[in-house]
Amino acid sequence: MIKVGIVGGTGYTGVELLRLLAQHPDVHLQAITSRTESGIAVSQMFPNLRGRVDVAFSEPTVENLSACDVVFFATPNGVAMKQVPELLDKGVKIIDLAADFRLKNPAEWQQWYGMAHASENLLAEAVYGLPEVNREAIKTARLVANPGCYPTAVQLGFLPLLKAGLIDSQTLIADAKSGVSGAGRKAEVATLFAEAGDSFKAYGVAGHRHLPEIKQGLTSIYGQPVGLTFVPHLLPLIRGIHATLYARLTTDVADIQALYEQAYQHEAFVDVMPAGSHPETRSVRGANMCRIAVHRPQGANTVVILSVIDNLVKGAAGQAVQNMNIMFGLDESTGLSQIALLP
Amino acid sequence: MIKVGIVGGTGYTGVELLRLLAQHPDVHLQAITSRTESGIAVSQMFPNLRGRVDVAFSEPTVENLSACDVVFFATPNGVAMKQVPELLDKGVKIIDLAADFRLKNPAEWQQWYGMAHASENLLAEAVYGLPEVNREAIKTARLVANPGCYPTAVQLGFLPLLKAGLIDSQTLIADAKSGVSGAGRKAEVATLFAEAGDSFKAYGVAGHRHLPEIKQGLTSIYGQPVGLTFVPHLLPLIRGIHATLYARLTTDVADIQALYEQAYQHEAFVDVMPAGSHPETRSVRGANMCRIAVHRPQGANTVVILSVIDNLVKGAAGQAVQNMNIMFGLDESTGLSQIALLP
Amino acid sequence: MIKVGIVGGTGYTGVELLRLLAQHPDVHLQAITSRTESGIAVSQMFPNLRGRVDVAFSEPTVENLSACDVVFFATPNGVAMKQVPELLDKGVKIIDLAADFRLKNPAEWQQWYGMAHASENLLAEAVYGLPEVNREAIKTARLVANPGCYPTAVQLGFLPLLKAGLIDSQTLIADAKSGVSGAGRKAEVATLFAEAGDSFKAYGVAGHRHLPEIKQGLTSIYGQPVGLTFVPHLLPLIRGIHATLYARLTTDVADIQALYEQAYQHEAFVDVMPAGSHPETRSVRGANMCRIAVHRPQGANTVVILSVIDNLVKGAAGQAVQNMNIMFGLDESTGLSQIALLP
Amino acid sequence: MIKVGIVGGTGYTGVELLRLLAQHPDVHLQAITSRTESGIAVSQMFPNLRGRVDVAFSEPTVENLSACDVVFFATPNGVAMKQVPELLDKGVKIIDLAADFRLKNPAEWQQWYGMAHASENLLAEAVYGLPEVNREAIKTARLVANPGCYPTAVQLGFLPLLKAGLIDSQTLIADAKSGVSGAGRKAEVATLFAEAGDSFKAYGVAGHRHLPEIKQGLTSIYGQPVGLTFVPHLLPLIRGIHATLYARLTTDVADIQALYEQAYQHEAFVDVMPAGSHPETRSVRGANMCRIAVHRPQGANTVVILSVIDNLVKGAAGQAVQNMNIMFGLDESTGLSQIALLP
Repeated sequence: MIKVGIVGGTGYTGVELLRLLAQHPDVHLQAITSRTESGIAVSQMFPNLRGRVDVAFSEPTVENLSACDVVFFATPNGVAMKQVPELLDKGVKIIDLAADFRLKNPAEWQQWYGMAHASENLLAEAVYGLPEVNREAIKTARLVANPGCYPTAVQLGFLPLLKAGLIDSQTLIADAKSGVSGAGRKAEVATLFAEAGDSFKAYGVAGHRHLPEIKQGLTSIYGQPVGLTFVPHLLPLIRGIHATLYARLTTDVADIQALYEQAYQHEAFVDVMPAGSHPETRSVRGANMCRIAVHRPQGANTVVILSVIDNLVKGAAGQAVQNMNIMFGLDESTGLSQIALLP
Repeated sequence: MIKVGIVGGTGYTGVELLRLLAQHPDVHLQAITSRTESGIAVSQMFPNLRGRVDVAFSEPTVENLSACDVVFFATPNGVAMKQVPELLDKGVKIIDLAADFRLKNPAEWQQWYGMAHASENLLAEAVYGLPEVNREAIKTARLVANPGCYPTAVQLGFLPLLKAGLIDSQTLIADAKSGVSGAGRKAEVATLFAEAGDSFKAYGVAGHRHLPEIKQGLTSIYGQPVGLTFVPHLLPLIRGIHATLYARLTTDVADIQALYEQAYQHEAFVDVMPAGSHPETRSVRGANMCRIAVHRPQGANTVVILSVIDNLVKGAAGQAVQNMNIMFGLDESTGLSQIALLP
Repeated sequence: MIKVGIVGGTGYTGVELLRLLAQHPDVHLQAITSRTESGIAVSQMFPNLRGRVDVAFSEPTVENLSACDVVFFATPNGVAMKQVPELLDKGVKIIDLAADFRLKNPAEWQQWYGMAHASENLLAEAVYGLPEVNREAIKTARLVANPGCYPTAVQLGFLPLLKAGLIDSQTLIADAKSGVSGAGRKAEVATLFAEAGDSFKAYGVAGHRHLPEIKQGLTSIYGQPVGLTFVPHLLPLIRGIHATLYARLTTDVADIQALYEQAYQHEAFVDVMPAGSHPETRSVRGANMCRIAVHRPQGANTVVILSVIDNLVKGAAGQAVQNMNIMFGLDESTGLSQIALLP
Repeated sequence: MIKVGIVGGTGYTGVELLRLLAQHPDVHLQAITSRTESGIAVSQMFPNLRGRVDVAFSEPTVENLSACDVVFFATPNGVAMKQVPELLDKGVKIIDLAADFRLKNPAEWQQWYGMAHASENLLAEAVYGLPEVNREAIKTARLVANPGCYPTAVQLGFLPLLKAGLIDSQTLIADAKSGVSGAGRKAEVATLFAEAGDSFKAYGVAGHRHLPEIKQGLTSIYGQPVGLTFVPHLLPLIRGIHATLYARLTTDVADIQALYEQAYQHEAFVDVMPAGSHPETRSVRGANMCRIAVHRPQGANTVVILSVIDNLVKGAAGQAVQNMNIMFGLDESTGLSQIALLP
């Protein structure tokens, strides 16, 4: 059994990790920490876990965590970078669901996250945990930076075309829409039901923190810098990301559908849908899955890729468990066989 | 492996059965029938099942179904009563998720469902499949009438008080609220998003088909006829029933909380929450669970019981699988360990 | 033109008052105050008002407000009771949308609102602003306590039966459901979209602040103390209250429908629907209207009354404008002719 | 008073027309026709109109309609083209809210709508009713083709840039999202609450009927054919369209914000928001308004325009009333002063 710790289990990625880990056959839940909720039963805060997770939140001390084989950080940005070094020294593997170790360039981190990086020396070692791209590196990683939700949907969507070098890499557009749980379990007016319900809007058009992460990832896939316009929107639903991606073909491609099917034929968690499909976010609700459809409207040169994930699963906790499975030599799908809830 | 057939797998209880059975370790999915969709892959209609359920709808013939050990009817009311006799004769066990075998009195059936009963002779044999009440009879049943969604939430809520004889049995009130999936996957104006969304209303106040079912069940529990006012409402959400139950105490009870905890202490799928709780429907979303809280506001004589289920799980498909487990001697919880999706 | 001031215009009742007052032909908007937003254009916070309300928030000083003919308090509970006396002294009429002047008994105020009352001497003078009950007193009032949202729906629902003395006054039940805007525009986890969306629950079953207000109102209508069980619930929608009321007939009534139609025949803002109706909350969305339907299921002794309002309009801002119209001798419907938005 | 008739008043554009016309000071509602609902009171179908619209549906005969000054067709596509000629002959002006007279090319009509055009000879005369483009022609029109909802949002969004010739006209992208009411009040599985709720998807990527309409409109504005990729999506909300538009600058523009502000400075129903804004659909809910914001993310060459309307108001009934006002020489804003409902 893998002894697992979670730091910061009071947010949505935390409760989702607990849901998945409680159903994982090879995991023993060793510690869930929360400074503010220490002593409180986890199931008191999250009644869906009643009878299934019988631990209480504890203090996030090194003592509580160093007995773990792996620790997930489900904390706000900027926490993990301070605590990770000591745990790594104790031989604990780390999967960080926040952004601390995603960007390779500390100056870029500082620009987008507004604080100096506390562990610059670990940035080179940290492996970006997108298994479909970095599986080999993840296998031996001590420190995995779990990708952001938008970046997961967008990178998996562009990957085959970009890798094949068939599109203009300088005019990529990602029109992305996310459910409200992506904003986290924080008391804020903007995400109240009465504010975000029955309405729709774009946000962060001038610049969103996931932009540099996506560009870094796409650049890594392509081998050269890419140009990307990224516009996130807030959907009046709880879980789900839908990325609508636009790219201009530079070569006439015989069969984009086949390209995608081949690219992902061995991936358990990427589903290329039949030609002409329109994946719905609900088709992945609660499941560790990315469903993709490719279109070439009117036979013109603009390709449209539709990519959906559950932001809390393939976009966060599920992908983190997938990474853990890879890091510990388990079958990658272990504990991740939940079927999406529909309707 | 239990060979399972499903008749009428194109509705919401059908897809939910498929979700649960696909994760059940002791089930082999033998046949899913649909007259209108015959030949179509199930996963084409329900993309959440892609890669998990690889069968196509077939014709609902006796040949296709008689090879099964058990057949679930997820059909509109009035279908099962015509097809069940022949399957029973072939030795197939039946779990009917429709209303055909719920009411013991054929006249009452005719009054509420507007058609004569086609298999009156089976009504006495049919076992009402509420395990918390009829577990022993279910074990040996050939034909189980799976309870309605409202009736499950209301009966489990009233049961301990009624059995203990502590309340006025003639003035029971059940103010019940259901999500829209309870209306089924039928093209109707009333349940369009633009009609049922962002709104709330009561319906069927003059009389709802679940009224006689609930009264029959409560009468059976109590041993004498009960008086019940039942008011259903339509909630602008997809899954979930919340029953708010009112009863007048006739005796001063020392500890209602303890009464409920004892009544359900051995039940895996009824969770009596701590005193003062307010169960949310989302705490059972996707899970085979009924969560109950009991209140006595202001110390007055009116007891308020709050009872929540997912109408498609404990209120339909999950309870049907629970019944199957009992009928086939499996652990009652087999394949029913899904944790509710929250948020 | 009536010179109007609003104290605390940054919440939902504030923006709703602005929507209505901007369309009112006899109103000049003199001042909108907010300590925290002073200097900010109102339409910057509420873009629906762009081009229609061209004032900025100002400091809530007596100077800014004493030039008004009437001041609406749309502040949190406990603010108006401190500021009202000085404004009354300056000859300004007051309509308080908070709870400060609703309860006649200062001890009850302290019990339910957790603070001593700062203006006990005004409680006797304050007129409870439910026009259908207190119209004459409102005409000459200096200080109107605008009713709460639940109390408006529940009192208008019970009124005709209670006044006619046809029901058991000791076993009244109000099962009430409110949209999320009733919780106000406050940063809180419990009313986030990801918490309150796609779910339903009761709350405050042990005791809710509107309970004493409703009991006081019903007692006043009936002439003797009433017994009431009041269970509020949180609906996953923004605007709307649906009260489902239960009462036991003590006399056989010939025609409850006629009783209600007569009781409200001269009321512009109470609509008794045809027998057998089920009013939807959306039928009053954005409109100053209470729609009521009465039922007697199965001909038994329990009467069921369905009463819907928009909690921000007839349950708050609309009723406040209705009170203003009465206080200033205008036609009661002036500026209140908005038709509900459907769908 | 303008005598107004409505053909097909049982859908969402019908009830919305009624809401607006009932509040219009210069309109007399002469006839509302519906073959299926003839004899039924309008307010029985739409309870929000109780007490405000006291007419019943009548048969859609020429006799009933020829007494009108203007007739609105709120019918399915293909109905108006058959009935309009006779009414025009009788001197009745026509505003068609369906698509019958929008496309100038009858072959294109046939291709996208699957039927031959019944009144080809009227296509040249019909005026496309986008006031911000065709105001002068609308003034004297007998027959106005009211624009589609997506086309309104998209054309108003691209107009200033396209007219100024600053963008690559061949690579326009419109990523558009619509609320469910856009699908109409039709019994269909796809738009059930349980299907369209809590989910999001694209649809019609291969080709949507609004594509030729938008291209025709943009081509007319630009003076030459444009290239457009149009991807519509279905939002889990009732009212609202959000168009996110992408265009590549071909010239360096000094101030796009100023360009938009000048373009719409005299328009009552187009609101250019301050630089950096993100218009929400709710800011126009129920109001005849298009709010637009322009962005140039990261200073790159891709311009992003955000354009929101209420699909039933500026995207249908409100724009139709605006056209009527223009056709009859009224102030264009008459009866259209509703403020959006927020929250």
